[in-house]
Amino acid sequence: MEDGFNTVSIIGVGLIGGSLALALKGRNLVNKIIGFGRNKERLKRACELGIIDSYTDSLKEVCEAELIVIATPLGVFEEITSEMAPYLKKGTVVTDVGSVKEAVVNKLEKIMPQGVYFVGTHPIAGSDRAGFEHAREDLFEGSRVIITPTENTNKSAVEKIAKLWTKTGASVEFMSPAEHDRIYALVSHLPHLVSFCLVNTVSEMDKNFIKYSGSGFKDTTRIARSSSEVWADIFMMNEKNILHCLEIFLKKIDEIKKMLSEREIEKIKKFIEEANQLRQKID
Amino acid sequence: MEDGFNTVSIIGVGLIGGSLALALKGRNLVNKIIGFGRNKERLKRACELGIIDSYTDSLKEVCEAELIVIATPLGVFEEITSEMAPYLKKGTVVTDVGSVKEAVVNKLEKIMPQGVYFVGTHPIAGSDRAGFEHAREDLFEGSRVIITPTENTNKSAVEKIAKLWTKTGASVEFMSPAEHDRIYALVSHLPHLVSFCLVNTVSEMDKNFIKYSGSGFKDTTRIARSSSEVWADIFMMNEKNILHCLEIFLKKIDEIKKMLSEREIEKIKKFIEEANQLRQKID
Repeated sequence: MEDGFNTVSIIGVGLIGGSLALALKGRNLVNKIIGFGRNKERLKRACELGIIDSYTDSLKEVCEAELIVIATPLGVFEEITSEMAPYLKKGTVVTDVGSVKEAVVNKLEKIMPQGVYFVGTHPIAGSDRAGFEHAREDLFEGSRVIITPTENTNKSAVEKIAKLWTKTGASVEFMSPAEHDRIYALVSHLPHLVSFCLVNTVSEMDKNFIKYSGSGFKDTTRIARSSSEVWADIFMMNEKNILHCLEIFLKKIDEIKKMLSEREIEKIKKFIEEANQLRQKID
Repeated sequence: MEDGFNTVSIIGVGLIGGSLALALKGRNLVNKIIGFGRNKERLKRACELGIIDSYTDSLKEVCEAELIVIATPLGVFEEITSEMAPYLKKGTVVTDVGSVKEAVVNKLEKIMPQGVYFVGTHPIAGSDRAGFEHAREDLFEGSRVIITPTENTNKSAVEKIAKLWTKTGASVEFMSPAEHDRIYALVSHLPHLVSFCLVNTVSEMDKNFIKYSGSGFKDTTRIARSSSEVWADIFMMNEKNILHCLEIFLKKIDEIKKMLSEREIEKIKKFIEEANQLRQKID
């Protein structure tokens, strides 16, 4: 296809993989989508729902595609890519949709055989709801997709990937893998960690109290429903940046704790107003 | 009125005060609503919108009503009640909708003249949006309202207030002021504090990073838009309970920080799964 792909393989047909499949199909950007995953029954179901056209348990078969999208939890990226390596054909583009980029890009670039092009991406979409049952053709419309090329990344492969995401309705932005990881440690990984800790604070104090929560608690902890498998990997792979953000967060907690203990109401108001103002920028 | 009130005064015509006014009017539970507030222009506007029927800057006039609802930020409760005290008539019911109960109930009970009945309540409704412009007749429908009687509270006044809230569509629950404050420190005040700190962490690290945030950050920090005036008072008045919850929260942060540093991925998964499970209970 001139303006798309003949065959695309999606490894990990979940919310993001499934939504990308639907977006590509809906825009006639692909003739055939092959799904790969660990659960045959679920792949069959995704096939029945028309999200993918066929499925396989052979990574060799996956490599028949011109574009391979890795959309599994981060922890298995290396293993999958290493297994694929012998079958990857020259000119194939491999991309991923993982939430951490530096470790991923470093490792996967090294595994790629000569003439196979890896491009790291991170679509800022999705939700705490996992699984292709929640996949939506319009998931990426109006969203942001970060593409993280390095000095080793093939420029025409980057262009192809950027074009693909633009066609799904996303706006594409480029940055280095390291910058991506610094930013998303702060605006995504830290809030997830904090959200898990908020719920587990209730868990330790009195589980029954949770029934008294209102919309504030519900919103603040919505992302605490996120997959343990996906998020344990993210935490592990962006540990250094997350720990740094956590330090600053703990400093902020200390600041307001001190204001409270010293009954500095005007300082507390100022602290809250600072949060008000910055938060309003993303309304 | 047999099944309602002839006149109700609302002190502080904001989101909660305004919504209560609309709910009472919509259900024909009141003939006349008097509004009191510090800003005449805004009271006039609330009058024009039909939220209140008249407004006054005289607390003496406020005391003409059979029911007086205090719906200002907590910090001025005592001052307002003390000023009203000389004018309060026997049989009047005074109630509040504040988010902290023990300090409020203790103080206000003492200020009430003989034969005037105070009942503390806390409707678990509202949002980060302040002001009567966001008031809704159905704000309390399906919500929970906590009523916090003490051994001094007049039983028929409690019944009247419970009936009123039930008619707005809320489900009423009774508990002691102290228990209320323990529970809401955990499920409301702590999440607000944490949410302010999350935004201020971004503020300290790099304000520009906020534009990269996705729906996770937005949800987690939605309540960081809440009023500094309202929340500084809540923090000050429930300080002891909040600091206790904060201690447990910091313990949880320490736990996951340690797991991260020691690269204990299975423990991290378990930690997240615990949060998943409890959070699912309020979906």
